[in-house]
Amino acid sequence: MIRHVAIIGAGLIGASWAALFLSKGLRVTVCDPSQTALDGLAPFITDAWADLAQLDAIAAAPPFDRLHVTRDIATACMGADMVQECGPDRIAIKRQIVAQIETTFAPDRIIASSTSSLMASDIQDGATHPGRILVAHPMNPPHLVPLVELVAGRATDPACIDTARGFYDSIGRVTVVVQKERVGHLANRLTSALYREAVSLVADGVATVADVDRAIAHGPGLRWAFMGPHLTYHLGGGAGGYRHYLDHLGPTQVARWADQTTPDLSPDLIETLVAGIEAATEGASTEDLARRRDAALVALARLKRDLGA
Amino acid sequence: MIRHVAIIGAGLIGASWAALFLSKGLRVTVCDPSQTALDGLAPFITDAWADLAQLDAIAAAPPFDRLHVTRDIATACMGADMVQECGPDRIAIKRQIVAQIETTFAPDRIIASSTSSLMASDIQDGATHPGRILVAHPMNPPHLVPLVELVAGRATDPACIDTARGFYDSIGRVTVVVQKERVGHLANRLTSALYREAVSLVADGVATVADVDRAIAHGPGLRWAFMGPHLTYHLGGGAGGYRHYLDHLGPTQVARWADQTTPDLSPDLIETLVAGIEAATEGASTEDLARRRDAALVALARLKRDLGA
Repeated sequence: MIRHVAIIGAGLIGASWAALFLSKGLRVTVCDPSQTALDGLAPFITDAWADLAQLDAIAAAPPFDRLHVTRDIATACMGADMVQECGPDRIAIKRQIVAQIETTFAPDRIIASSTSSLMASDIQDGATHPGRILVAHPMNPPHLVPLVELVAGRATDPACIDTARGFYDSIGRVTVVVQKERVGHLANRLTSALYREAVSLVADGVATVADVDRAIAHGPGLRWAFMGPHLTYHLGGGAGGYRHYLDHLGPTQVARWADQTTPDLSPDLIETLVAGIEAATEGASTEDLARRRDAALVALARLKRDLGA
Repeated sequence: MIRHVAIIGAGLIGASWAALFLSKGLRVTVCDPSQTALDGLAPFITDAWADLAQLDAIAAAPPFDRLHVTRDIATACMGADMVQECGPDRIAIKRQIVAQIETTFAPDRIIASSTSSLMASDIQDGATHPGRILVAHPMNPPHLVPLVELVAGRATDPACIDTARGFYDSIGRVTVVVQKERVGHLANRLTSALYREAVSLVADGVATVADVDRAIAHGPGLRWAFMGPHLTYHLGGGAGGYRHYLDHLGPTQVARWADQTTPDLSPDLIETLVAGIEAATEGASTEDLARRRDAALVALARLKRDLGA
């Protein structure tokens, strides 16, 4: 039974996990070498709490008595039932963090890394108890986007994947167990694939940054909030379903794939993209935009719950 | 002023346009060589009307007195202010349809093709008045997904793009003018890019069809209902915005792009995909799933309107 989670790293992802875990009644210890980062936790959680309160019946104010902070990893892990690791995505740092965790953390408890770009196999390499190390990767912000991708490394004990799945499911997450270790796991491979073409279209002068984004948010993005690409095309096949779609329109997909290329993310292209997003956002601050995004995610979560979707 | 639209083709797209145009107070004439297709219009529109009534203050029943049907293209276009062409996506057929339209349709009025895979330049080739022919491509179903992509052919009069944009905007569509003719225009290039990886992940045994779709619908798809990939990564850069993201995390995108390949959509892979969607949909009929999709799109449209998103 996981009642107390140690979170290593108080960045955006660590802070968001902290808010979520607190809202689910867990005790949370957050560790970060930066006191400034630790000081930012309470304001972040207070903001997130207002959103979380729209999704769950929770206390009016965050239960800060169940939140502990420390700058020492070994201290953070003492007595914790699980570690959610959210340190910098560099393998040498991850291994150092694991070594420090293992000095005090009970060997039968899992260490779940939030890494988006590293592999569990590499992180567990050299660990004293590598079998309990796995990837549990959320999407930003974790307290509002339910997906958690679970990936085992070569040495991961399958029972730890089951334990992790049970834990995240129990706090309302949607878990997917990724069957093979790949760069970007699952969801970020999909977002990268979409992004490749989103950048190419701008690089090739087919559309502006603003128009590419408008096309998604008023077009296919609406469907993707409820169904993935496979189901979308299953319905694109009418009464004949996916087989009819693939037999008749599969070749149009192949033709489009053949026409797509990887853009060169050069300094010039980066300037074009940055200028494009400035034009698209019309002076709105990233803070305001993130607030609007979070409000939209909360409203969508409620809607999906009402629809059972 | 466009008050009367002739729709050529009574398939899914033509029928959906008809429902939308009627709900916006327009007169509609639908032409199809198949009487069966024409007979299916009224039931389709009646179903669609229930959804449209949740988005607009419209009469309780569809105004079938403003809907006309015919099997003859020339008859359909007489007196129409605009043609929405929704015939089969084969260039020889499109050109035949255009030739028949031009026998009775006033030369100063636009012909907008719903084609998803052909180019306006090819459709207008050989037309008597090619300047008024353009692509106005919707996403399925057009009465619930607001995006309309406008694309000019080589011979298209720019004023016709303006006229089309004004028309679709006036009936609540979100228009994007695509700057260059490309296979798949804009939105379907983006969906194809996502789909390429969605298929690859299944082909490579990284995830099941069901898990790929779950990852989208409970992960990045939630954000895409409100913002495109550029804005998403702008916010992924925190306070530093898109430039910070591209400078620091651009290389992780490049690494993922380098790791992605085009799957071979072989008969074996098609079997795997079809079996995967059968497992994912657990016996639900495409009709039921489409009904759930439409209910979700209606609810999302209302939510986005409330949020001003």
